Amino acid sequence: MPEPTPSGEPGAQRPDELTLDHHRQARTGLAEAVYGPGKSPEQCAAAVAGLLAGDGEGPVILTRADDDQVKAALAAAPGAQTTPTGPGLQTLVWRAAPPREGAVPVLTAGTGDLPVAREAAAVLAGYGLDSPVVADVGVAGLHRVLAHRETLETADVVVVVAGMEGALASVAAGLTSAPVVAVPTSTGYGASFEGVTALLAMLSSCSPGVSVVGIDNGFGAACAAVRILGARQGAA
Amino acid sequence: MPEPTPSGEPGAQRPDELTLDHHRQARTGLAEAVYGPGKSPEQCAAAVAGLLAGDGEGPVILTRADDDQVKAALAAAPGAQTTPTGPGLQTLVWRAAPPREGAVPVLTAGTGDLPVAREAAAVLAGYGLDSPVVADVGVAGLHRVLAHRETLETADVVVVVAGMEGALASVAAGLTSAPVVAVPTSTGYGASFEGVTALLAMLSSCSPGVSVVGIDNGFGAACAAVRILGARQGAA
Amino acid sequence: MPEPTPSGEPGAQRPDELTLDHHRQARTGLAEAVYGPGKSPEQCAAAVAGLLAGDGEGPVILTRADDDQVKAALAAAPGAQTTPTGPGLQTLVWRAAPPREGAVPVLTAGTGDLPVAREAAAVLAGYGLDSPVVADVGVAGLHRVLAHRETLETADVVVVVAGMEGALASVAAGLTSAPVVAVPTSTGYGASFEGVTALLAMLSSCSPGVSVVGIDNGFGAACAAVRILGARQGAA
Amino acid sequence: MPEPTPSGEPGAQRPDELTLDHHRQARTGLAEAVYGPGKSPEQCAAAVAGLLAGDGEGPVILTRADDDQVKAALAAAPGAQTTPTGPGLQTLVWRAAPPREGAVPVLTAGTGDLPVAREAAAVLAGYGLDSPVVADVGVAGLHRVLAHRETLETADVVVVVAGMEGALASVAAGLTSAPVVAVPTSTGYGASFEGVTALLAMLSSCSPGVSVVGIDNGFGAACAAVRILGARQGAA
Amino acid sequence: MPEPTPSGEPGAQRPDELTLDHHRQARTGLAEAVYGPGKSPEQCAAAVAGLLAGDGEGPVILTRADDDQVKAALAAAPGAQTTPTGPGLQTLVWRAAPPREGAVPVLTAGTGDLPVAREAAAVLAGYGLDSPVVADVGVAGLHRVLAHRETLETADVVVVVAGMEGALASVAAGLTSAPVVAVPTSTGYGASFEGVTALLAMLSSCSPGVSVVGIDNGFGAACAAVRILGARQGAA
Amino acid sequence: MPEPTPSGEPGAQRPDELTLDHHRQARTGLAEAVYGPGKSPEQCAAAVAGLLAGDGEGPVILTRADDDQVKAALAAAPGAQTTPTGPGLQTLVWRAAPPREGAVPVLTAGTGDLPVAREAAAVLAGYGLDSPVVADVGVAGLHRVLAHRETLETADVVVVVAGMEGALASVAAGLTSAPVVAVPTSTGYGASFEGVTALLAMLSSCSPGVSVVGIDNGFGAACAAVRILGARQGAA
Amino acid sequence: MPEPTPSGEPGAQRPDELTLDHHRQARTGLAEAVYGPGKSPEQCAAAVAGLLAGDGEGPVILTRADDDQVKAALAAAPGAQTTPTGPGLQTLVWRAAPPREGAVPVLTAGTGDLPVAREAAAVLAGYGLDSPVVADVGVAGLHRVLAHRETLETADVVVVVAGMEGALASVAAGLTSAPVVAVPTSTGYGASFEGVTALLAMLSSCSPGVSVVGIDNGFGAACAAVRILGARQGAA
Amino acid sequence: MPEPTPSGEPGAQRPDELTLDHHRQARTGLAEAVYGPGKSPEQCAAAVAGLLAGDGEGPVILTRADDDQVKAALAAAPGAQTTPTGPGLQTLVWRAAPPREGAVPVLTAGTGDLPVAREAAAVLAGYGLDSPVVADVGVAGLHRVLAHRETLETADVVVVVAGMEGALASVAAGLTSAPVVAVPTSTGYGASFEGVTALLAMLSSCSPGVSVVGIDNGFGAACAAVRILGARQGAA
Repeated sequence: MPEPTPSGEPGAQRPDELTLDHHRQARTGLAEAVYGPGKSPEQCAAAVAGLLAGDGEGPVILTRADDDQVKAALAAAPGAQTTPTGPGLQTLVWRAAPPREGAVPVLTAGTGDLPVAREAAAVLAGYGLDSPVVADVGVAGLHRVLAHRETLETADVVVVVAGMEGALASVAAGLTSAPVVAVPTSTGYGASFEGVTALLAMLSSCSPGVSVVGIDNGFGAACAAVRILGARQGAA
Repeated sequence: MPEPTPSGEPGAQRPDELTLDHHRQARTGLAEAVYGPGKSPEQCAAAVAGLLAGDGEGPVILTRADDDQVKAALAAAPGAQTTPTGPGLQTLVWRAAPPREGAVPVLTAGTGDLPVAREAAAVLAGYGLDSPVVADVGVAGLHRVLAHRETLETADVVVVVAGMEGALASVAAGLTSAPVVAVPTSTGYGASFEGVTALLAMLSSCSPGVSVVGIDNGFGAACAAVRILGARQGAA
Repeated sequence: MPEPTPSGEPGAQRPDELTLDHHRQARTGLAEAVYGPGKSPEQCAAAVAGLLAGDGEGPVILTRADDDQVKAALAAAPGAQTTPTGPGLQTLVWRAAPPREGAVPVLTAGTGDLPVAREAAAVLAGYGLDSPVVADVGVAGLHRVLAHRETLETADVVVVVAGMEGALASVAAGLTSAPVVAVPTSTGYGASFEGVTALLAMLSSCSPGVSVVGIDNGFGAACAAVRILGARQGAA
Repeated sequence: MPEPTPSGEPGAQRPDELTLDHHRQARTGLAEAVYGPGKSPEQCAAAVAGLLAGDGEGPVILTRADDDQVKAALAAAPGAQTTPTGPGLQTLVWRAAPPREGAVPVLTAGTGDLPVAREAAAVLAGYGLDSPVVADVGVAGLHRVLAHRETLETADVVVVVAGMEGALASVAAGLTSAPVVAVPTSTGYGASFEGVTALLAMLSSCSPGVSVVGIDNGFGAACAAVRILGARQGAA
Repeated sequence: MPEPTPSGEPGAQRPDELTLDHHRQARTGLAEAVYGPGKSPEQCAAAVAGLLAGDGEGPVILTRADDDQVKAALAAAPGAQTTPTGPGLQTLVWRAAPPREGAVPVLTAGTGDLPVAREAAAVLAGYGLDSPVVADVGVAGLHRVLAHRETLETADVVVVVAGMEGALASVAAGLTSAPVVAVPTSTGYGASFEGVTALLAMLSSCSPGVSVVGIDNGFGAACAAVRILGARQGAA
Repeated sequence: MPEPTPSGEPGAQRPDELTLDHHRQARTGLAEAVYGPGKSPEQCAAAVAGLLAGDGEGPVILTRADDDQVKAALAAAPGAQTTPTGPGLQTLVWRAAPPREGAVPVLTAGTGDLPVAREAAAVLAGYGLDSPVVADVGVAGLHRVLAHRETLETADVVVVVAGMEGALASVAAGLTSAPVVAVPTSTGYGASFEGVTALLAMLSSCSPGVSVVGIDNGFGAACAAVRILGARQGAA
Repeated sequence: MPEPTPSGEPGAQRPDELTLDHHRQARTGLAEAVYGPGKSPEQCAAAVAGLLAGDGEGPVILTRADDDQVKAALAAAPGAQTTPTGPGLQTLVWRAAPPREGAVPVLTAGTGDLPVAREAAAVLAGYGLDSPVVADVGVAGLHRVLAHRETLETADVVVVVAGMEGALASVAAGLTSAPVVAVPTSTGYGASFEGVTALLAMLSSCSPGVSVVGIDNGFGAACAAVRILGARQGAA
Repeated sequence: MPEPTPSGEPGAQRPDELTLDHHRQARTGLAEAVYGPGKSPEQCAAAVAGLLAGDGEGPVILTRADDDQVKAALAAAPGAQTTPTGPGLQTLVWRAAPPREGAVPVLTAGTGDLPVAREAAAVLAGYGLDSPVVADVGVAGLHRVLAHRETLETADVVVVVAGMEGALASVAAGLTSAPVVAVPTSTGYGASFEGVTALLAMLSSCSPGVSVVGIDNGFGAACAAVRILGARQGAA
């Protein structure tokens, strides 16, 4: 039972601060991941080390970690695959799964959407999926996305990452029978409202069967794709 | 100076309720129009009759009038061109301008956007412009709008009317050098929020040079087109 | 090229009001569907009849149709499967696909979520999927959803339909490795804001890999499930 | 009567800037507390010192104080219990009440919710209640909260601190007959909107009898718990 | 496993539509209640009858039922206590608990808040608590609430029901040490936004220890009070 | 102490439903008024009759009353001055004050704003002020408001009633040194959002010294003007 | 006619950047003021110097100026009265009006509201009004504001500055017949939303005749008070 | 096909990050522009250099570039016209078009709107249009905009840049028959909400024919003007 935290040690990680879910991979096909923001470097390091030391399986992933968190986590558990996923942020993957089948192209409407797309690709890589990022194919120049029509038609899942008005999700979903997981991004200005516009637009898509994850949530889109592919392999 | 309205006569139109702007056509190229909602049938009729009797010029337009307003207005001033523009609503035009040059196609993403498109077309007709409505060419099936590529390329102004995620505005603007005036509509559900989603999406279009009017405001889009074409004719 | 609609015939369906997308099934695995609201009964009937008469394939679906629309559509094309999906609304399916494999349980948090769940089940049935609706298993009594744990573990896709705080999506996703498609509903009061609360909650789920469709959009959830299962069968 | 503040002395605390409420403890069972943000260090110090010097009773609490405010307050009044409650923020308690009976477990959904939980625990400690923080038991892994079922069943009040979709409040309230005070936190991304999503979700809980305080308001939740326990002791 | 609902029987209640939680009273101190809106009369009746027939205990409550729902429920289970709680809405209580100790005054700011207050009082009565409604004591005339100061000081729980700016919650909480459960109502205009303003104001109260339930949620406030009193009796 | 309302008598007014504030006129210069919406006809009648029978002074005003409320109130207290203030709504004034000095012109931007302006004028008349309504002088034709420049320059208070973008408040305040009380109205469409746009615009006016009341709150604007004039007369 | 600004001189003030309104004092009773944010130091200095050099009258006021702006303005025009009005912000007054009659107390709910109250007091001082700031009299302890009842009863205008739930405006308006100008502040947390909650609450006040200015707009409240008093003196 | 980005090289521009649209000028009359925010300096430089090296035509524009982006872009492609367009931001133009006919005055309501106006003017200059900026003519002093009436009457397009309540757009549109493109800015406080208020107000303008672009989107307004003038020259 905790007493109030003693003064002067705000960052000190204490035993009762984490309740790790070692068997989430077995239960849900997705191992517990560590979300960086709001955690101290010590808490990040302890969570990563704890998950690696447990009897669970699957990749151990630390998302949106800042420099101090990365440093602490790598000190506690060296050897992660590291991907920059935003200004001053990185996503780290330990114990990546071996390569497996599955075509999950990650499309972006603009270059500014790349950090979110890279987060998705890094998480997919953690689950053994080598996913091409098809960047900067927004609908202002339709020929750009149409040039990737074959990629869309042969995909198992399509992840669409777009800010501004998010129209790429609707257009892409009209060109493929694959599941489309749309990720709105906070890219854009004017009336983009930090991704709210793209979020609402994707939820209102005139192309049926688009499903949506939260703003800038490349991690979540990758997890949805892993669920879809996992189900598929179990069934095949 | 009005005394408080006497009881029992809520609908009676009184002299001080209207301040007509007879010379707005001369000043802005657009005559004053009468917006139905919130006005009594008597007020609608008085405004229409007053504008027709004044020394102004240009069409006299009554928008979004319900059945009682239409009846009162036609009793006071017969002979209007009448267009249904929504459930139980009509737009009436008196003293339409003679036909003039100008290609202003009105595109809709879906069939549900037609009432707003028809309001735009009726107002354009009032200013002498015979505008084709190209209906139901939303981006879920890109071939539909691509089939009208020549219409877009030869247009003087393009009006795009769309609800849901409003992506048609971005796609159309990528296919033409004409000015694109986008009208979000309240069509759609899920997260369309009565047109707010389409409004924000159009304002955030990745295709530069799209400008936007209010939700369901077919009248306003037509007025913007008239301004554009008027400027053009004055200059030519 | 349309002239302004002649007065007095607001409901008359005219040739240029629909641009049917007959090959959408071939392109996206999902045939074009007809969304009732905002269309006249004549437009609904014409769209349904046109899709049935075309050279396309797949089910023809009319969603959220009111009594007049249902009547007109059935007059033009008898023999639909009819499902009530809300107060005064029905979803109709013509040319349903033959039964196929695929376990897509549809969970609801409360009884009030049933109309949306039924829309999802009716559309899934149109694509040949016989989906059990597991009703009224909200998280206030956890034993209710835990009683269906096996259904969750063996599902190919799980559709979760919930209003209020939408917590069932997070809980269900923690109990299965299947893809979870969440549908927020407008059920609830207090601070439910017509489904916005459930929508935001589902998008913010602490269970990774939940993806979300628009409020009350049972149709969209079914389409996402069809995409997932279609991809899977093509791959297997 | 104040003249406009002379230039050059923005931080100088002046006599008329505070109206201390010395007898609030007697009136409401809760002593006046000092909310740091927006106050100068001098104002914080003066308020703390003034409350300690007055004839009131009960703990003197300074919440959300930054380093300068903490330094000034401790210089004016040494000997506070200090708890870190966020990045660069601390909560200080002087004149804590003697220990008393009462089980008020503070649950958090994630590790990122700990600062808010600690603020609640520190304030509860100021009123003599030694409250266990049960951290990181979010609903993505239900077994985590179910492991604390006995704590919930024997609690006098349960405080639930959660960000993201805030579902832990609903689940916990389904497992106990104790009053549940829910604190939404600004933890999360995607569509968490700085705690608004959790706030709305908790207000819409399908588990009846959950009541809610403001976002990140650990202080307020503790005060609600003190009121509940105080009423109880007075009655017993 | 349900087949799609057969056409023509939208209201027919089917066996799989309800999952009753008979032991919720034992688990949470609050029996499962039936929320009327969105349910068919048949579903309401079946839920009420099912709960009464089960082996659970505690009152059976049907909230916000319209005339058809009331009629169906009373036909299935006569003898309920009936309270009007809004235009065309009633709350019904079967198997009310025997009278018990506990002072829970329900204050309203205005006469328009009475239906919500009555819902709270009816539910409290269902749990054996005879709660006075103190109506129309808003802060525009402070003497009105000050006249009830003794009621506040001797209360076990105070329920404050207010629309508009909801200031009564802050004022009342400054006059009592009892727990204050605030219920924002949708009463008011101008910028009340159907209760959102009162909701936000109550959550932002400067009087610490106010906790809040959803808009117009008199039921929820009563449940919170029952939890508080139940805990208290268990402890005393 | 009230028992739960007996069934079958939803509209019956009971003694404890009103707490009249007879001396509000003496305290605040404004007598208590009765706001119709949400009250039963019986409650309206009782409140009006109670205020007239009390020892208070000043006008007795019933605002936004529907036909049943008007009928009940006039039956209980004949002889009111009646003003239509919206579709099916009226404002009634009993015991109007004798005429007094004070120029309070009420400007409207459009004809649709008249019901709100009339509510303001009726309430001003109740306090003895005969206020001219200057209708339909919106800024699209600036000459209309400039024609009333002298009225503005000699006013004691100016009330500006406007919907849509509410620009008339800014323009009027640039033409007068009188206090400007702005009333946003729910008139308009497109992006007017039921008056929210006008409300925000008036609060953001570039003309300093504009103060604002709630949407459609003509009553509140009149009260603010009465306070201003009352202060002035007391001082003169 | 400007050419695009030459590179390298972002801050250089150019002749065409300001259009001073020298006669605004004569027209509106309020001289043009310079709003600091968004202007370069050079623009601030030029505006102040230009207004002082013109043939206008009345005080010259620079609001919300940061340190660089203050320095530049004082270099261009020494001798201003300087008041700190927020973190790193000051309000400067040149050419203050001579003292005049008028009681305008400025109440604040908390100490954190003081910077906004001081902005109001500084602007009032610029117009010759010596206004007492009555700080920290929020409604959690009613005796605090009741202790100033005489100040309220004898005021010509009352300015109420409050954040959080803003209830002080309603309470104060119930205690005085003077006009009440309410200023919501961005003070508070939880669900204060940077002042939106207080803004909405003040607009929805149950005390009639409260009018409201924008969030943190102490300047605007002072201007409204000056208009009220100016009208009054002209009339007296 | 990209592998996950190697660690340690967050800024390195890779070949697959850009999909340039070299022929957008031919297709839409507007060359592809590079939006700075969210791109690395290397990405900005590569995009600019790529567009200049391609076979496209028209100006190459980099908007809202910070110092590092400007430095990198100028190192890769010297010789741009540089315009400061906000704090620490610049807009760069390479390969500006030769001067052409067209009067596009850019009005601002205040000095704080100048950065956005300058972005518009810089982009217009890139397309050969020398556009006067008419600064600081907000409606609080109507004479200021009326002094430019001839500029408005002879304009081909009018761009109105305004924050706060954005009323200048309505007033200007009432004085000209030219198309009015309105740009809301994030200037203002109180209830400006970072430009949302001006955006909504402009969309709700009572002057018909105003069309609107996103908040602070001077670039978009210039593009809309170029479309309008291009259409016009093609037609003349």
